[in-house]
Amino acid sequence: MIPVVSIVGKSKAGKTALIERLVVELKGRGYSVATIKHNPHGFDIDQPGKDSWRHARSGSDAVVISSPQRLAIIRPMDHDATIDEIQSLLGGDFDIVLTEGFRAGKAPKIEVHRKELKEGLLSSPKELLALVSDEPLPVDVPQFSAEDVAMIADLIEERLISRRAAQDAMLFVNGSPIALNPFTKQFIGNTLLGMISALRGVGRIRSLEVFVRKKG
Amino acid sequence: MIPVVSIVGKSKAGKTALIERLVVELKGRGYSVATIKHNPHGFDIDQPGKDSWRHARSGSDAVVISSPQRLAIIRPMDHDATIDEIQSLLGGDFDIVLTEGFRAGKAPKIEVHRKELKEGLLSSPKELLALVSDEPLPVDVPQFSAEDVAMIADLIEERLISRRAAQDAMLFVNGSPIALNPFTKQFIGNTLLGMISALRGVGRIRSLEVFVRKKG
Repeated sequence: MIPVVSIVGKSKAGKTALIERLVVELKGRGYSVATIKHNPHGFDIDQPGKDSWRHARSGSDAVVISSPQRLAIIRPMDHDATIDEIQSLLGGDFDIVLTEGFRAGKAPKIEVHRKELKEGLLSSPKELLALVSDEPLPVDVPQFSAEDVAMIADLIEERLISRRAAQDAMLFVNGSPIALNPFTKQFIGNTLLGMISALRGVGRIRSLEVFVRKKG
Repeated sequence: MIPVVSIVGKSKAGKTALIERLVVELKGRGYSVATIKHNPHGFDIDQPGKDSWRHARSGSDAVVISSPQRLAIIRPMDHDATIDEIQSLLGGDFDIVLTEGFRAGKAPKIEVHRKELKEGLLSSPKELLALVSDEPLPVDVPQFSAEDVAMIADLIEERLISRRAAQDAMLFVNGSPIALNPFTKQFIGNTLLGMISALRGVGRIRSLEVFVRKKG
């Protein structure tokens, strides 16, 4: 799976600002980055009544809005998606995923803390990869200030991105992720890479996506 | 590949309204439907300054906004996506894709026409699956009025959805679709279905997605 780190913290702690700066830093290092924002209050696509909005409201199972600058795919949900479900929709072509929130998820967390907010952390120390804070706290995890973006990126790189295998495989059956051990990953990956590199018109393979669908 | 039909027509001809009604009709028949709207002027996600909007502007390669009612994945683009590129991002789990616009694409088209708009059709008759018009036109394709939604859906069902093979496979290498003949589709599909149904915890497979990534 793609490595995930969750940026958590109380409201107004500076989560979005940290993510914006980490994206710039990690992109600058050549990584492909996806971000996930949990929005419990919902959000809208374009202004009510406009065509894009009408599509998004039409009841279809996915609405794509394509412009020269941006492409959006919107799906109706009946629950808050898990990070696993989101990974199945995102596909495989990222080096790292940063989430804002998702405190209940199992991804390693970086908590953003500010003195002026109420005392105490949201996360337990053992969930934390690091703490970003404007005051030192008696917690045994690496601590940074919000300006130490390069050092935070170093940690993410070292602990999450560089440990990913050179060849990775992700499998989803009926939309749900299937956990694969390293042997099975290798086996499925090698079988597909071998089979598909033999097809006409296929050059060097950096990424591969296969969708199979069976009716009845 | 998933069958695609493009709803084309001049501005104000009633394309969005037809798509909204077709979505309801096709969903009512049990099909999974995706729609694509081309928006040359761009669109915005939420209101400027809000967190969702800041993520979408942060420069990351994909932004996911997740709410209990809706999930959006937004990617920056440097060109208008083709239907093929969009299919690779959409995945395999749809019965039919309806596009609004995409006149230059190679998908079969349904043109929506209204007498009060300027004369003449945008499409040549041989691209047309059907014509939806408030006046009969001397074109040798099935013609419907905008109210004939059930009959238009019948035609889409018969000509596009029901002709799709019971087992289908789609392949993308480095993000680009690879055309597969029926034999290769069957071969890749059967290999994967066999290999993966042998894994522990995998029950009956309706759909399968595999992502493989190779570094360096």
